[in-house]
Amino acid sequence: MKTLATNLTDTATRLQKIRSQTEFICKPLEPEDTVVQPMVDVSPPKWHMAHTTWFFEEFVLKPYLPNYTVFHPSYSYLFNSYYNSVGNRVQRAERSTLTRPPLRDVYSYRNHVNEHLAKLLENPDDRFLSEMMPVLELGLQHEQQHQELLLTDIKYILSTNPLLPVYTPAKTSGKTEHVPATFLDVPGGIYKIGYQGNGFCFDNELGVHEVLIHDLQVMNRLVTNGEYLEFMESGGYKDFRFWLDEGFTLAKTSNWESPLYWMKQDNKWFRYSLHGPEELDLNKPVTHISFYEASAYANWAGKQLLTEFEWEAASQAYPPQQGNFSDSGIFEPTAVKTDQSNMLQLYGDAWEWTYSAYHPYPGFSTAPGALGEYNGKFMINQMVLRGGSCATPADHIRTTYRNFFHPDKRWQFTGIRLANK
Amino acid sequence: MKTLATNLTDTATRLQKIRSQTEFICKPLEPEDTVVQPMVDVSPPKWHMAHTTWFFEEFVLKPYLPNYTVFHPSYSYLFNSYYNSVGNRVQRAERSTLTRPPLRDVYSYRNHVNEHLAKLLENPDDRFLSEMMPVLELGLQHEQQHQELLLTDIKYILSTNPLLPVYTPAKTSGKTEHVPATFLDVPGGIYKIGYQGNGFCFDNELGVHEVLIHDLQVMNRLVTNGEYLEFMESGGYKDFRFWLDEGFTLAKTSNWESPLYWMKQDNKWFRYSLHGPEELDLNKPVTHISFYEASAYANWAGKQLLTEFEWEAASQAYPPQQGNFSDSGIFEPTAVKTDQSNMLQLYGDAWEWTYSAYHPYPGFSTAPGALGEYNGKFMINQMVLRGGSCATPADHIRTTYRNFFHPDKRWQFTGIRLANK
Amino acid sequence: MKTLATNLTDTATRLQKIRSQTEFICKPLEPEDTVVQPMVDVSPPKWHMAHTTWFFEEFVLKPYLPNYTVFHPSYSYLFNSYYNSVGNRVQRAERSTLTRPPLRDVYSYRNHVNEHLAKLLENPDDRFLSEMMPVLELGLQHEQQHQELLLTDIKYILSTNPLLPVYTPAKTSGKTEHVPATFLDVPGGIYKIGYQGNGFCFDNELGVHEVLIHDLQVMNRLVTNGEYLEFMESGGYKDFRFWLDEGFTLAKTSNWESPLYWMKQDNKWFRYSLHGPEELDLNKPVTHISFYEASAYANWAGKQLLTEFEWEAASQAYPPQQGNFSDSGIFEPTAVKTDQSNMLQLYGDAWEWTYSAYHPYPGFSTAPGALGEYNGKFMINQMVLRGGSCATPADHIRTTYRNFFHPDKRWQFTGIRLANK
Amino acid sequence: MKTLATNLTDTATRLQKIRSQTEFICKPLEPEDTVVQPMVDVSPPKWHMAHTTWFFEEFVLKPYLPNYTVFHPSYSYLFNSYYNSVGNRVQRAERSTLTRPPLRDVYSYRNHVNEHLAKLLENPDDRFLSEMMPVLELGLQHEQQHQELLLTDIKYILSTNPLLPVYTPAKTSGKTEHVPATFLDVPGGIYKIGYQGNGFCFDNELGVHEVLIHDLQVMNRLVTNGEYLEFMESGGYKDFRFWLDEGFTLAKTSNWESPLYWMKQDNKWFRYSLHGPEELDLNKPVTHISFYEASAYANWAGKQLLTEFEWEAASQAYPPQQGNFSDSGIFEPTAVKTDQSNMLQLYGDAWEWTYSAYHPYPGFSTAPGALGEYNGKFMINQMVLRGGSCATPADHIRTTYRNFFHPDKRWQFTGIRLANK
Repeated sequence: MKTLATNLTDTATRLQKIRSQTEFICKPLEPEDTVVQPMVDVSPPKWHMAHTTWFFEEFVLKPYLPNYTVFHPSYSYLFNSYYNSVGNRVQRAERSTLTRPPLRDVYSYRNHVNEHLAKLLENPDDRFLSEMMPVLELGLQHEQQHQELLLTDIKYILSTNPLLPVYTPAKTSGKTEHVPATFLDVPGGIYKIGYQGNGFCFDNELGVHEVLIHDLQVMNRLVTNGEYLEFMESGGYKDFRFWLDEGFTLAKTSNWESPLYWMKQDNKWFRYSLHGPEELDLNKPVTHISFYEASAYANWAGKQLLTEFEWEAASQAYPPQQGNFSDSGIFEPTAVKTDQSNMLQLYGDAWEWTYSAYHPYPGFSTAPGALGEYNGKFMINQMVLRGGSCATPADHIRTTYRNFFHPDKRWQFTGIRLANK
Repeated sequence: MKTLATNLTDTATRLQKIRSQTEFICKPLEPEDTVVQPMVDVSPPKWHMAHTTWFFEEFVLKPYLPNYTVFHPSYSYLFNSYYNSVGNRVQRAERSTLTRPPLRDVYSYRNHVNEHLAKLLENPDDRFLSEMMPVLELGLQHEQQHQELLLTDIKYILSTNPLLPVYTPAKTSGKTEHVPATFLDVPGGIYKIGYQGNGFCFDNELGVHEVLIHDLQVMNRLVTNGEYLEFMESGGYKDFRFWLDEGFTLAKTSNWESPLYWMKQDNKWFRYSLHGPEELDLNKPVTHISFYEASAYANWAGKQLLTEFEWEAASQAYPPQQGNFSDSGIFEPTAVKTDQSNMLQLYGDAWEWTYSAYHPYPGFSTAPGALGEYNGKFMINQMVLRGGSCATPADHIRTTYRNFFHPDKRWQFTGIRLANK
Repeated sequence: MKTLATNLTDTATRLQKIRSQTEFICKPLEPEDTVVQPMVDVSPPKWHMAHTTWFFEEFVLKPYLPNYTVFHPSYSYLFNSYYNSVGNRVQRAERSTLTRPPLRDVYSYRNHVNEHLAKLLENPDDRFLSEMMPVLELGLQHEQQHQELLLTDIKYILSTNPLLPVYTPAKTSGKTEHVPATFLDVPGGIYKIGYQGNGFCFDNELGVHEVLIHDLQVMNRLVTNGEYLEFMESGGYKDFRFWLDEGFTLAKTSNWESPLYWMKQDNKWFRYSLHGPEELDLNKPVTHISFYEASAYANWAGKQLLTEFEWEAASQAYPPQQGNFSDSGIFEPTAVKTDQSNMLQLYGDAWEWTYSAYHPYPGFSTAPGALGEYNGKFMINQMVLRGGSCATPADHIRTTYRNFFHPDKRWQFTGIRLANK
Repeated sequence: MKTLATNLTDTATRLQKIRSQTEFICKPLEPEDTVVQPMVDVSPPKWHMAHTTWFFEEFVLKPYLPNYTVFHPSYSYLFNSYYNSVGNRVQRAERSTLTRPPLRDVYSYRNHVNEHLAKLLENPDDRFLSEMMPVLELGLQHEQQHQELLLTDIKYILSTNPLLPVYTPAKTSGKTEHVPATFLDVPGGIYKIGYQGNGFCFDNELGVHEVLIHDLQVMNRLVTNGEYLEFMESGGYKDFRFWLDEGFTLAKTSNWESPLYWMKQDNKWFRYSLHGPEELDLNKPVTHISFYEASAYANWAGKQLLTEFEWEAASQAYPPQQGNFSDSGIFEPTAVKTDQSNMLQLYGDAWEWTYSAYHPYPGFSTAPGALGEYNGKFMINQMVLRGGSCATPADHIRTTYRNFFHPDKRWQFTGIRLANK
């Protein structure tokens, strides 16, 4: 991974800001909310808080802070996620066994590590600076990734509770408007794909290479709840012709008849949000749909999904504007406004499923050691998503950023953008 | 169910004492401990606290306290266990979704119901007294049953945590002694089985009837860890000849090689207890074994398990002495002492697996309404256990008391007594 | 097990008769029918044919026929059922892997073993006669047990085929009549339970012992399809009040709404039989129901099921008449006739579920060696059935005969008899 | 799909030849072999024989032969594979329920359809010729695909039998030689991908489009058993660093320690083949490995797998020679010979896993109606394989041919070719 040429003071400031953002996200939770794991994809919030801390302890403090003593000898076993190189660990499906350490100990752990990181940055050993700083930067990016997971995991956890609790009250929102869908030209040609800048990027964005793109037209915004509802009401979930076979089977056996979190009551559609249940807003982007549903919707609409290369070409042709990120504190997708032009929502609101499997770029290679396990070993059976969401920190996203999930997953803020090819 | 002829003041006192005992049991827990459910048999402690409260609200306050308003309209849905007659409910396997209401709300719920019960007992409607008092008594007995489950569920929950936390520190205990096993005569004949007294009993103890018992000899105490270890060390878990076929298959597929909670480290046996891990005491009763293991052990020893009728006959021939119950605060089985005589440990320390399926007595009938669901509908595929354990309240047990679990269950304080027939 | 004092010629004759009956049962099958295993309870017919042969080879020819060479060195591995003492074997769930040896080789195997058994019986070694003859007898009884399993397994296999093939055409049957249910007295008292004769019995019938029976009244015939249909039509499958909890859950999750093999078409009930699909005859006994359904039906009817001891007492009070056994070649239950009196259908037509778990009699002990695995190791989680069925050979049944299945099983010819207690 | 401009006589000849090849493949089977389904991926051979016949009946005879009456009214239900458009069908996992119709009826069905197809070809209706001929051609290609599946399914079926039967005896084969691996240049540039000829191709080969390929070097032959054994012996199956995470987990939980069909006995490696078990030949290509194993092997070797586009570019640079196809009657991969040059084994021996997900080409569209379900709905979670195998008919393969399987599948003849990128 590349890293920013950054000075130590800036890093210390960002560190403080990013670390406290994690705690801000967890503030509305009860201790009991922070330990459960209602499905294996979800991790307990307390685990996220400890694991992101462990990352800094394991990869920064232990190698680079002289005489550092770990906060607790068992925490490496408890809070390692998937790094075989680091050693044994609690299995993913067993994370809810960690009722101890209690939440207050995890806060102490965070403080302990924060203080030692601050100390390290005040007085680092120059010999290791060029080696340490990229790892520290990776730790910050890693923590931001977990901030998004925290929001989606918290949403899932609270949604399984029959009381449907409010995570954070909605800010007053004006009435939304209907913005018609149009399709904007993206010219074909040879595009350079992958990260070419000087800042930070993940290793999966490297292996910069040229790709031949064919002419296409790309929708100016995300597909809305209203458009998706049309698909549903025309029988889309029951009509095999629109579906990939595995998706259709899954939808049937799982009784999927709408996106995740949608509920019908007294003939009216509601959806569970981080503000509690709310009436469905037809102008907001549809979200919490699987790749299968995105693909079925596209087939029903007579359009296609973009490949990740087409998406990146589109974002070169129409550089993304500011979007609705987690910084807004809304934590749910928002509708576009009529007075906007350009290609909208390329950034923020909802990750866009592409019809590209998550595979290595040509020339991709995994780093040696534990950090080589960060991305490469997941490059099978997952689809790439692009553009970030309402749960992504604004300074975390790039046009070359590759997110990835299995095609059946729905608990992330996932959405649809169509193309004409 | 029968009930004690009791006066109101006594009941109010017992109510206060039993209800606060539940809270005493939960005091050492962190809020996070009270919400998880590491296996479907186990319920979250917070759920136990709320469910026992719901029982009084549903079956006592709602029908008998005029103008009573429920504490929260959703709690009946959240905290009903298995009463179809009362309506829908959170499924057993979903109890860990109840991160809300938080623990402090459950305490408020308990207080609210306690206060209204006190009020009701101060000034009851005489017309309903004879109808209400048995239900109130059942509520108390029910809460005591959940106190035992709380202890065993807490033990299981904490045991899944890699930190193996201490629930309550061990009281200093003297050295134990080896007391040889002897077999005492129980004469054959016609015995009256079932509860014939004037106090409380469960409906499954009724249908008092005569049973013809054949002469037998019954072991003077429970089988010890030391005796069980001999079985293990002689290859008992690998030798199909001693086992019921389903038990042998289960032991193989589950990699059972010792009782639940046993761990070998550096060639020494330890067991997890509510006092944390401790070295195995060979003189204490073996516990946390399934019926299958009890049966295999008996076969290996060339003896038999008792039927529940033989056990009850033995307890008529050798009326049980005081035992080690939850009142001692030890919460783990204890060794017998050499200066004792008689048939020991019939009460307390560990429930004794009998070779009797949990079936209705002749003449058994279920009560009408919800309380008829208390016992009868579980009378299949389970085995009867007798005598109470170190987690049973002393004033809860009787010689006619029938506990029941599936033959594969190990997380209760279950033990073995042998017979010669 | 006890055995008949029998002479060698008689045994040779019975051997020939019983062995060829197995082949008679398999004659209507295609080779393809003989190899599949649509559920784990069912064994492929070819396997039954080979396994019953293996039993004689393993336990009679190998020990008692000098210089006997096994037909094929692998067959002991292929066709051992569950005898750990004999060694490794094909796992039960893997029996459909045995497409080879083909059916014709299994016939050769049968002939080979038949011939050597005949040779052995012509010229046995007197020294071993008293040891060998009981094993030979057990082999014959064992083969008869598999004849019943063959019929029920064939029925299940063919029923899963969408063509619903006819196994054997129905013989022309007269119109049936409705015979009202009455309840006959069985007086209480001490009854001797278990086999006391001089003929053959299984080890599970031994441990003859006295049991105290209380007065009861027993229905004069089996419950009919018509009576069961009333239960269904009054919503019996949906009303939890009649059900054991595990049964109700199973019925819901398995979508049970009628006995196995029942089908509704154009508002009319049919059932699949070994004669193909036929219209439901209301006067014939209901069959292919689980213990759970039998129990729910009894509760709905306000009656009880008998214990196995009560059944045996009833059969002492009303010695069973000839019944409808496999010898009739009908292979389905038949209706009783009005001109009959007495307690009907105690023998034949359908096995009667009792509310007794399959446990050892007092004094039961397993034989040493492989044959000790015949019965004892299954004495858990199963319920006793009494009286034989339309698939049982007439000379195989006794009033003391204990059949046993798990309470959820439905593919045997199982039925219901009620009692008033 | 495109089709050959072909005359009717040629088609009639090919039809006869291809149809009888299916029967040739099934000749060594016992009827019992033709009905079982040891895993859900495998179909019973009898089902393949009937299904390929049904394809012609459903899509050719019914629409194009006037007054055609189906052979049996239920066969459309029994032998439809996955065409939702055609209607209900026996579920894939239920195919072993089809013990009836017996094998001889399936042969009659085949003859019936063959005769009517011959009749149709003798005297077709000219108005429909251009519509019918492509469907007939598709039926032939479809039957050839099932011939490959027949061979691999038969291999799997027989391999589960403890007797490890021989399907067909090995032809005498000379000693094999070791041919060193070299890497041949494939120049980068813009390549045209997809089928551009006038013959038949599947719809998934269309959407011909240009792809930018980067310079690479490609191995001159398939990876051998000997090379793969080195990977195994150096601990490759235990070293997570080489594996995709899902593959490593699967290998562990499935106890994979070698390719499918390999067995170690007395310290020597054997593999089950269609000639029965044979000693491992180190010079023959490794086969029956999953994508996960192919990928782990490539990582261990410090090389990469090709993408499907790189493979197609390589086959443009080095047009494939004749290979070892099913026509040879060997039905197992063969070793290359030293006197060969060029890039070897691009065709035949073993399908080559590519690191390309099976996705639609740009411009891909599904045909209307049932035949649109042929390929498109499977374009998720599967990986593309190229080049055909020892079980592929020689006249069935093309350089543009895209086979596809899930990355965990091992029962096909799958192999590895490496690249240097």
